[in-house]
Amino acid sequence: MSIEALVVLSGGQDSTNCLYWALDRYGAGAVDTITFDYGQRHRIELECANRVAGFAGVPNSVFPIDTFQALGGNALTDAGIQVNEDGNGGLPNTFVPGRNIVFLTFAAAYAWQRKIGHIVTGVAQTDYSGYPDCRQETIDALESTVRLGMESKVEIHTPLMNLSKKETVQLARDLGALEALALTHTCYNGKRPPCGECPACRLRAQGFDEAGIEDPLLSVLT
Amino acid sequence: MSIEALVVLSGGQDSTNCLYWALDRYGAGAVDTITFDYGQRHRIELECANRVAGFAGVPNSVFPIDTFQALGGNALTDAGIQVNEDGNGGLPNTFVPGRNIVFLTFAAAYAWQRKIGHIVTGVAQTDYSGYPDCRQETIDALESTVRLGMESKVEIHTPLMNLSKKETVQLARDLGALEALALTHTCYNGKRPPCGECPACRLRAQGFDEAGIEDPLLSVLT
Repeated sequence: MSIEALVVLSGGQDSTNCLYWALDRYGAGAVDTITFDYGQRHRIELECANRVAGFAGVPNSVFPIDTFQALGGNALTDAGIQVNEDGNGGLPNTFVPGRNIVFLTFAAAYAWQRKIGHIVTGVAQTDYSGYPDCRQETIDALESTVRLGMESKVEIHTPLMNLSKKETVQLARDLGALEALALTHTCYNGKRPPCGECPACRLRAQGFDEAGIEDPLLSVLT
Repeated sequence: MSIEALVVLSGGQDSTNCLYWALDRYGAGAVDTITFDYGQRHRIELECANRVAGFAGVPNSVFPIDTFQALGGNALTDAGIQVNEDGNGGLPNTFVPGRNIVFLTFAAAYAWQRKIGHIVTGVAQTDYSGYPDCRQETIDALESTVRLGMESKVEIHTPLMNLSKKETVQLARDLGALEALALTHTCYNGKRPPCGECPACRLRAQGFDEAGIEDPLLSVLT
């Protein structure tokens, strides 16, 4: 069976959900995953991506990107910077400029080399909270860019784009992904059990609350 | 004086030309340069970029990108692959998928951090020879992508896009860039003096021939 879809797997809740969406759509054996080691402070994310892929029975390749750390200036790769919701130009300082553009371009390069026609990413507008590279508009422009720049017909899928956090939790339940969500990492402060206080933890908790489903990560850890 | 323009400087003829174009347009003191160490086999390119910047009296920052080499499969970063004009899907195997998209996205991230409004790149359609990421269409789509993804108004300038190689040599003469061109590197085979045989050498020689100007690189070396 040939590989049809490549999931950009970060080790978080949304990309794990996307992996199960891709398995449902393309079938076991037709899905590959890619993870980027971009110098994220919370190395636990890489471990989570690896565990999630193993649990789902799909391959996972990790590629390094040393450039973001060299550029510096954001709270996700620079241990000297505290997470702060008010950064440059009103964007939170967890914004790493170009991150999703670069991730998806490298994913497209990997897909081009292997003739994989579909890329799946967990970006969501509901998560927007100041991240302009998570908007559908940005992803559409990027899809045009990589198609033109690589002469390919690759499609970038964003199954969570317009779902609320509640709806993504319901989707995870419907796809049978809840058990895998126990292996994911969300907390901006890198805590396990999660800090419960950072914007990422609050958004995750809100989604499970509204869906009336207990977060499997919390039941595993408590 | 604040920095207004960022030139992506590879150490080659075209980006050096662009540096002088930017100096002419924005003025000395308003131009910065960025160079990427992406594991290119010909390390001499990095040295040339540094020398050109020094000669022109502008700063030059080098940023690492270790991802292309990890992805592998092309003749520019992989010493085990010979330069070949017929690669995957009819593209030459010197095509590094995503290279210009990634370079310009990182340049835009650097510009975003420093509030630099203009990026200058030496890509040209006349150089196209199978490189779809050098087309104006791709650059336009990418400009939209980085503007949307970083909420910026950055402009990507491509002063050489529609010039023939003859015209770029004439432009270099008009901008007073000929002397700097003696410091540049073009040869795909990494030779100095240049091999004269590879597609890049042939294209360069053709431009100087047609403009009736002696290549200063050759007069310096012979």
